[in-house]
Amino acid sequence: MIDGFGPEDRSGLTPVDGGRAPRPRRPAAGVVSGGPPPGQPAPALVVADDPATAAVVTTRNLVKAPSCTVSEQHAADGSAQAIVINAGNANVATPDGDAHALALASSAAQELGIDTDAVLVMSTGVIGVPLPIDRIQAAMPAAVAALSPAGAADAATAMLTTDTHPKQVAFRLSDGQGSATIAGMAKGVGMIEPNMATLLVVLATDAPLGTGLVRQLLRRAVKVTFNRISVDGDGSTSDTAALLATGSAPTPPGLDTLTRGLHAVCADLALQVVADGEGASRVAGVTVRGAATESDAEALARSVATSLLVRAAIHGADPNWGRILMALGNAGVEFDPRRVSVRCAGITVCRFGVAASFDRGQAAAAMQRDEVTIEVDVGSGGAQATVLTCDLTPEYVRFNAEYTT
Amino acid sequence: MIDGFGPEDRSGLTPVDGGRAPRPRRPAAGVVSGGPPPGQPAPALVVADDPATAAVVTTRNLVKAPSCTVSEQHAADGSAQAIVINAGNANVATPDGDAHALALASSAAQELGIDTDAVLVMSTGVIGVPLPIDRIQAAMPAAVAALSPAGAADAATAMLTTDTHPKQVAFRLSDGQGSATIAGMAKGVGMIEPNMATLLVVLATDAPLGTGLVRQLLRRAVKVTFNRISVDGDGSTSDTAALLATGSAPTPPGLDTLTRGLHAVCADLALQVVADGEGASRVAGVTVRGAATESDAEALARSVATSLLVRAAIHGADPNWGRILMALGNAGVEFDPRRVSVRCAGITVCRFGVAASFDRGQAAAAMQRDEVTIEVDVGSGGAQATVLTCDLTPEYVRFNAEYTT
Repeated sequence: MIDGFGPEDRSGLTPVDGGRAPRPRRPAAGVVSGGPPPGQPAPALVVADDPATAAVVTTRNLVKAPSCTVSEQHAADGSAQAIVINAGNANVATPDGDAHALALASSAAQELGIDTDAVLVMSTGVIGVPLPIDRIQAAMPAAVAALSPAGAADAATAMLTTDTHPKQVAFRLSDGQGSATIAGMAKGVGMIEPNMATLLVVLATDAPLGTGLVRQLLRRAVKVTFNRISVDGDGSTSDTAALLATGSAPTPPGLDTLTRGLHAVCADLALQVVADGEGASRVAGVTVRGAATESDAEALARSVATSLLVRAAIHGADPNWGRILMALGNAGVEFDPRRVSVRCAGITVCRFGVAASFDRGQAAAAMQRDEVTIEVDVGSGGAQATVLTCDLTPEYVRFNAEYTT
Repeated sequence: MIDGFGPEDRSGLTPVDGGRAPRPRRPAAGVVSGGPPPGQPAPALVVADDPATAAVVTTRNLVKAPSCTVSEQHAADGSAQAIVINAGNANVATPDGDAHALALASSAAQELGIDTDAVLVMSTGVIGVPLPIDRIQAAMPAAVAALSPAGAADAATAMLTTDTHPKQVAFRLSDGQGSATIAGMAKGVGMIEPNMATLLVVLATDAPLGTGLVRQLLRRAVKVTFNRISVDGDGSTSDTAALLATGSAPTPPGLDTLTRGLHAVCADLALQVVADGEGASRVAGVTVRGAATESDAEALARSVATSLLVRAAIHGADPNWGRILMALGNAGVEFDPRRVSVRCAGITVCRFGVAASFDRGQAAAAMQRDEVTIEVDVGSGGAQATVLTCDLTPEYVRFNAEYTT
């Protein structure tokens, strides 16, 4: 866990199955999932027993995947029952992309016996290659047959591309009012700079949430989690996050617990995405405090987290506060450099804008961890924000010089 | 030479000494330069025989080097006679930075017998370490003694940090009206994303230019050359470009020839900087045509040129137009993806937003050059811009994980 990322108050939130290791998670009650057997082109499915309230957030990239557009249209009425996900082909920049995205939805709907506009669509993978829609449609019966209450791990695996492992998390929420479950799965390791939404994220809860509330909660959770991570500064064309709320929990907890639960699920998945970032060897949480506004704090933290020189220094376990100062100065935010202090892995390396006295060897040793923190105080006010990133490694470059997305 | 970068019309512009190999260039008449003997801490100097009109452009990074501030103050009256340059220490984020920057100027002025406010200052290197001002001052007499009309190569060498070779160029300008010389030297290989000015650039001409004109010509030339290159997206705290015009040419050429000459000198130096980019194995010129405005074209070209995934693909000689489309879509500029065409190394790989039919092996072979072009037409209007970048390599990451700037 990275301090400052996710809800501070985790009372009433119990991780299902504990820990963060990639293993099967029970989905929210009333939701079944499934992925195809290995080698089959069938898509993954997440299906609620009945129509659920639903919200979707998609990429702000102008070149938007047809799957994003179809999902937005189908969630426009605040309701959905199923999500169909294909990995390996983004269905972007192809002549029949719009028709193929709709065909994915209608094919799943037909096999499930529900309306086409109750199906959301997510596609991820190579850009510019026509989707093999015939083969996917032919495999749809196998995908529906694989649906099961214990199938979430299969679906989380089927949606991966260059990810090294599936990303899942679930929390049991309970307070004085009642209890519910909230669960999520995500994929994504590259083209990750979701200044809007993110990668592919499927979230489900059995709590009853009205259509206005499901949208509001999703937007806020995405804003402070998936929108505050960066692997390479490149925003994908296919980013989509969807939340289904089935309402099957008989006595749900209060709104505060639900809000914190969704925040925790999104923060945990976001951390898993960054930790699996292409070529990454460690995760860094960049926290900026003492900013005039939250958006200033976010802009400053983002500038540090996306600086190639800072990320290369993190790879080298180098407490290079000069590069951090440089990145802060490029954020387009006003502050007084003489009031800035910087801590790397808990060690103060810069105070009032100049070098602090510290043991470089000790600081370098402290940065040799899987998760490191960079804490900046700009001394301008009381707002703060944390942005997650991973180190920039030679493996990232090698991988992306050789892989055609 | 990269098409679209530098003046289209090069009539009347003759490269001095020809070619682009790093070798001594004759400076503009009336200017002497010099660098210290190897191993000495003396700064480099560029000195005009008499006070020259002068203009300076510095970084837009909020954390601005004291050398930038001093240079701006000393050029505020539109005049300067000398530039003192120290490499290895940026004199940024240290307790006595302001006093040390001024001491550099006054020390050079004293030794040269001129006013302190006639001296511009440039410092580059490590951030946060106090400048060894005593040692530099003690070495100033040696720097002045080394001044010579043939000393430009020594100065261009003395200002380097992690550059692999000095960067110089000079053009002889002539037209029906007369003739003059314009010469420049630059340093810089990393922290290069000058969305404002750039690295360290010293420009001199013997043409007579008024104080208003010298500023106007420098700003325009920097805008379309040094402001359109990117090595790593990180804007330095020390970027400075200065132009001295001595006025010693008896019959100078017309304004159009002078403008094109300065543009050519800046474009050539900018190309040399990108080609020497940390870890770079090839240069890419990203040209966007058919944009509604020049600033749209520049924003689109910059988004492509700074995308890590595009730059990794260039390293892999991969005509990955999907990543180019993704980067265009992230530029914050309106266009219709269905009107976009993309050429990599002269081969059309995307037409009307979808894959063109092309031989991938042939395109990959064409991209295996020292200089490659990526040409985009967005079909929105008649404006265009070219931004230079270099490929992202594992060597860049290794280098910057190990080197403390």
